[in-house]
Amino acid sequence: MKNITDLKTVRLSDDQNAVVILDQTRLPAEECYLELTSAEDIWDAIYKLKVRGAPAIGVAAAYGIYVCSRQIEAGSFDEFYTAFRRVKEYLAGSRPTAVNLVAALNRMEKVVLENASETVPALVELLHKESLAIREEDAAACRRIGEHCLSLLRPGMGILTHCNAGHLAVSEYGTALAPVYLGEERGYGFKVFADETRPLLQGARLTAYELNRAGVDVTLICDNMASSVMQKGWVQAVIVGCDRIAANGDIANKIGTSGVAILARHYGIPFYVLGPTSTIDMQCPDGKSIVIEERDPAEVTEMWYMHRMAPKDVKIFNPAFDVTPNELITAIITEKGIFNPANGGFES
Amino acid sequence: MKNITDLKTVRLSDDQNAVVILDQTRLPAEECYLELTSAEDIWDAIYKLKVRGAPAIGVAAAYGIYVCSRQIEAGSFDEFYTAFRRVKEYLAGSRPTAVNLVAALNRMEKVVLENASETVPALVELLHKESLAIREEDAAACRRIGEHCLSLLRPGMGILTHCNAGHLAVSEYGTALAPVYLGEERGYGFKVFADETRPLLQGARLTAYELNRAGVDVTLICDNMASSVMQKGWVQAVIVGCDRIAANGDIANKIGTSGVAILARHYGIPFYVLGPTSTIDMQCPDGKSIVIEERDPAEVTEMWYMHRMAPKDVKIFNPAFDVTPNELITAIITEKGIFNPANGGFES
Repeated sequence: MKNITDLKTVRLSDDQNAVVILDQTRLPAEECYLELTSAEDIWDAIYKLKVRGAPAIGVAAAYGIYVCSRQIEAGSFDEFYTAFRRVKEYLAGSRPTAVNLVAALNRMEKVVLENASETVPALVELLHKESLAIREEDAAACRRIGEHCLSLLRPGMGILTHCNAGHLAVSEYGTALAPVYLGEERGYGFKVFADETRPLLQGARLTAYELNRAGVDVTLICDNMASSVMQKGWVQAVIVGCDRIAANGDIANKIGTSGVAILARHYGIPFYVLGPTSTIDMQCPDGKSIVIEERDPAEVTEMWYMHRMAPKDVKIFNPAFDVTPNELITAIITEKGIFNPANGGFES
Repeated sequence: MKNITDLKTVRLSDDQNAVVILDQTRLPAEECYLELTSAEDIWDAIYKLKVRGAPAIGVAAAYGIYVCSRQIEAGSFDEFYTAFRRVKEYLAGSRPTAVNLVAALNRMEKVVLENASETVPALVELLHKESLAIREEDAAACRRIGEHCLSLLRPGMGILTHCNAGHLAVSEYGTALAPVYLGEERGYGFKVFADETRPLLQGARLTAYELNRAGVDVTLICDNMASSVMQKGWVQAVIVGCDRIAANGDIANKIGTSGVAILARHYGIPFYVLGPTSTIDMQCPDGKSIVIEERDPAEVTEMWYMHRMAPKDVKIFNPAFDVTPNELITAIITEKGIFNPANGGFES
């Protein structure tokens, strides 16, 4: 496996005046880094998915509110806190579904509230430390998540994943892709199938990109090909990340995840959801209580601005049709009438 | 409902020198008709999906071999038949999965073989009549298919369809969309959900286009949103066409159909497959015996050449996430370990 950690999803600039992110909307065409120095820059980067993936959004928000705190000119704690709150509320509105965003911002606010007696420069330094801690805890959590999941996997397995819960979604290695990277380091030889994940194609642009770049065997499929790939016996495990986990274990994740879960159940394939505990929202009793973000229709009707939307030379499986077994068909209707194929097919 | 029949999917030119098709690769941007006068033109139009949909391909092939037969210069039946066979074999190779293509060509060949004593001009005229008969039988079959299916539907139902088995796929009205058009004529007020159908977006470009043009209430979704729409209770029936039906009732249809069937089963929604009996292949015992066409990887990696891929003003439902109920999740894995949410969720 080639190195993936030279790709830096989110970091602080050396002078700490900016959050530096890899602009994920430019992938796979180019690895382009953006320096974000204002709350507006950071909000825009999160809203437009230039940085995305629940844990990475949390880290970007923590770094972001730290960078903005450095710019606050305040003579008193109250002045500082008022300005801090304004930035916090603003950033919290950039994406409603991911719990990590608000969790990271709340954690930063707690540092401020618990140190009201400190000077403003001391507060800012405490925020710096907290943001670094959030980043390090994320990286460590990802590695542990990967080890736990790897204990359930076997060398040579086919693994299907949806969207991108990889290195690009977190500080390092990913959640859903952490076991893949850890397994590859030990020569497991996984075969990964990446759903392209319409409408924004995170699977094609990001998952296929980062796995391909790391030398992992990855095949990109359209979302609607997952059933076909499972039917062929090519998939032994489905591994996805998640944006929010409700108290009863319902999860919210990229559109299409529930469909993949139903397919996995149908084909008898285990369906694993990977995420840090920060993704668990005990205030949320079940999936019905999770607010689902609806996005711009143009994402569906107008295409990603680049001509090419997947890395060069990535493998593709592109069947034009698939087979639906008769047991799943309620009726076949021809001009001769209505047939129930489960009752033994047609008469010759 | 507005008229749809002024859109002519496939027809013979008035002088009978050409097959005239609506170029479906140009939809939804423009309604552009192509005159195909050579076997190469016709092969190319079928291969490149300028005309597509199993029944429409059959009609195009029948008209096509008739047009080519008019160009054969032959002094004897044997010369005529040799040239005819050459065209037939060539056209039959344009798409391997759809049974209607070969069925229509075989039917045209039968006319030739059963009339070996006729003059060449008389043979050509018999081929003309046969091609018209194939077209008329297709239109009549579609209407009957629509009536049969409509008897299973109720006004106001939500109907999900995959790919395009509509007016654009046949001579008139469609197979899967025939009950929708017939119902709309009677004021049923269906709400149709059209899967966009990656990679070639027949659902976005064609189904959403023709239903929208006819004034039917249609909402375009990405393929991976079907589970979400069903979960919300918006779908009471799934209706799809098919490219081949095996003797045991297994069917081959556009990639993704088996996945939609599994989702429908999971949500307790009936799954109807609509197609003419010409789609049934009694020589094919089951789905495993059906040859599945694999197509150019560029269809997945590079986008449809147009910027806009769906009609203007069509409704869109575009959630960014969906909810996966705990019962479908084998494990949730965090840095704290592996949880089975079906065993009552997490401890606080």
